[in-house]
Amino acid sequence: MPTGSGELPSLLPIPGVALGVAQAGIKHAERDDVLVVKLDADCELAAVFTTNSFCAAPVTVAKAHLNEQSPRYLLVNTGNANAGTGEQGWADAKQCCEVLAEAAAVKCEAVLPFSTGVIGEHLPMDKLLPAIPSALANCQVDNWRRAASAILTTDTRPKGCSREVVIDEKTITVTGIAKGSGMIRPDMATMLAYVATDAKVSREVLEALWRSAVNASFNRITVDGDTSTNDAAVLISTGKAQNTDIDCVESESARLLAAAVTDIAIDLAQQIVRDGEGATKFVTVRVEQGASEAECEQVAFTVAHSPLVKTALFASDANWGRVLAAVGRAGIIDLDVDAVSLLINEVVIAERGARASTYSEEQGAAAMAKEDIELCIRLGRGQASAAVWTSDLSHEYVSINADYRS
Amino acid sequence: MPTGSGELPSLLPIPGVALGVAQAGIKHAERDDVLVVKLDADCELAAVFTTNSFCAAPVTVAKAHLNEQSPRYLLVNTGNANAGTGEQGWADAKQCCEVLAEAAAVKCEAVLPFSTGVIGEHLPMDKLLPAIPSALANCQVDNWRRAASAILTTDTRPKGCSREVVIDEKTITVTGIAKGSGMIRPDMATMLAYVATDAKVSREVLEALWRSAVNASFNRITVDGDTSTNDAAVLISTGKAQNTDIDCVESESARLLAAAVTDIAIDLAQQIVRDGEGATKFVTVRVEQGASEAECEQVAFTVAHSPLVKTALFASDANWGRVLAAVGRAGIIDLDVDAVSLLINEVVIAERGARASTYSEEQGAAAMAKEDIELCIRLGRGQASAAVWTSDLSHEYVSINADYRS
Repeated sequence: MPTGSGELPSLLPIPGVALGVAQAGIKHAERDDVLVVKLDADCELAAVFTTNSFCAAPVTVAKAHLNEQSPRYLLVNTGNANAGTGEQGWADAKQCCEVLAEAAAVKCEAVLPFSTGVIGEHLPMDKLLPAIPSALANCQVDNWRRAASAILTTDTRPKGCSREVVIDEKTITVTGIAKGSGMIRPDMATMLAYVATDAKVSREVLEALWRSAVNASFNRITVDGDTSTNDAAVLISTGKAQNTDIDCVESESARLLAAAVTDIAIDLAQQIVRDGEGATKFVTVRVEQGASEAECEQVAFTVAHSPLVKTALFASDANWGRVLAAVGRAGIIDLDVDAVSLLINEVVIAERGARASTYSEEQGAAAMAKEDIELCIRLGRGQASAAVWTSDLSHEYVSINADYRS
Repeated sequence: MPTGSGELPSLLPIPGVALGVAQAGIKHAERDDVLVVKLDADCELAAVFTTNSFCAAPVTVAKAHLNEQSPRYLLVNTGNANAGTGEQGWADAKQCCEVLAEAAAVKCEAVLPFSTGVIGEHLPMDKLLPAIPSALANCQVDNWRRAASAILTTDTRPKGCSREVVIDEKTITVTGIAKGSGMIRPDMATMLAYVATDAKVSREVLEALWRSAVNASFNRITVDGDTSTNDAAVLISTGKAQNTDIDCVESESARLLAAAVTDIAIDLAQQIVRDGEGATKFVTVRVEQGASEAECEQVAFTVAHSPLVKTALFASDANWGRVLAAVGRAGIIDLDVDAVSLLINEVVIAERGARASTYSEEQGAAAMAKEDIELCIRLGRGQASAAVWTSDLSHEYVSINADYRS
């Protein structure tokens, strides 16, 4: 029951990036579950990984390989996370890289591995290894749509988008795909995201703008407050657009590219929330008039994580008391509750810490009946603001996570 | 679907404390929803209140009255929390106290008000005020059982217990009642607890031992991670047992009394978790071998709040990967994941960060089939430990909180 139309827009190819998929049958037969991304020799790459201490074997291997040399291939499998698998897990991840490296005639360290799926089971190497050369063999530039489907797990639909922006009189293209629907929370999620651009940009600028884009997007979403062992977000630049090298983060070109990349990242992040496990609502929690952006974020996440708020959203119940109770426990020092107000889809529900005199239950019911809900909380103590995106807590969420081992 | 037998044990009277109930029909007809607790003149009282900034009007009034004089009456209503009600809420709480004070011929400030129930609606004063003298009129010493029922909201059963302990050659009795089943998390909960003892004890010692008992009990439980606007926990001593005054917190007498009171508080706290909204499991999350008690608590609460762990518990699925993933995101600096092990009801599930070689799915399934589950997480980095108690996340939880406004 995801929200929004969910139609995958057309995904523009990025010269210098080719993608190939294969069916290893890791968890499901006859479903693409292996992806190889092939990068031209001059590409730059920036990556952000999970902060979970129990990070999966492929995360550890990918970080080690990134320290060794510039990557030429990304290798992704779904259906098995290769997490909580000890030394065997590391050896398996290495062997997958070696098989691809041999077929592609590059060093093992030129391959970055990514896995997503069930935790605590060893990779089915007998199924996975033979599929790797097949995925390599069908690498094509115009294959983003199939790649978007090949990386899914409990997702109900593929996620991707493209943008074009003119920089330095050249048309620059940015295309991204992502997966994720559960174990989603700030500091990355059970989430993989691959974004590529044909812009020519230095590694330093690429890393700076990617970190900033991730903070404004994937780190601002939450489905269930759980952080995964496997998530990673990657930004690739191929330089094929032949613009003047963007090597200063303060330049107008860098600003334009950053805006396009951030826009893509936010779009992908919101697609993930719209496909959140059991989601029936797409909820923006916007906190305004805070003393700092940090405290606005803190309040927004406390509200977005509250099971009582999330079940009220599922019920389309304008239970503003639960929202104020969550604001009140967010740990904001010296919060003047009499200055706080709450709007739901622009209807003033509460002001000065109590129900607004103008408010009627009918107004609240009408606002909550919508699929897209914005809770706007005004703290009345400053100029800062922040927004996070989340979904509701439904019966379907419990079913998805209780009835199947994921 | 609460866990455990849920039978209310016999509740021993405390000389100096009388309790009376009445039916105001605030939310349900023909159900006790008003409680008056009458204290003899020489009683001492210690109280701990919610840390939520949006604390309810009765909490603000009770704190103000406590600063004025020794309390003689507690007044509790259920069905309406009088929270998020602004200035009118404060005036209503004051008026309730005045009505009781007048009927009992004491000062208004001698009454402490408590409310629990729906947030954001004004108290139905027309129903509530007439019931207050009735509750006063039927005050009896042997009325704890009815009082335990009169304070319930979404609870499915009354909660209470008694202990006797010999101090200074006198038999001291401690009796307590509590309510709460949702909006339960550390730093107090949607929870009211009233505990009384006939011990003679100074206010200073009473306050010190109550704070310590609350930290070891009500602050160690979590149902849904939400903290209420209204919770309060009260300890009363009447001095009728005629023991030598306990006026030093270091004394053997104080230690014995503290043990009995803490035992009562833990018993009540566990009864609350067993009656957690939608609970089908009673879960102890025990963290051992930590560098400090604080980090053990931090890990325990992160695991206990994880929706993915809670849905796996509901499914009786020994999904240890989700437990380790929650441990990994608990924010413990320099956690050596290879030193971490996990036991479920004493079965070693994971060790050195991966599945134990001795472990079979059948063992895990057998351990998880029980109603009472202990997750024991050993961090392998010290001697400290801590335990918290929680319940699972079931369809019933979503139904209770989505289908009714509570």
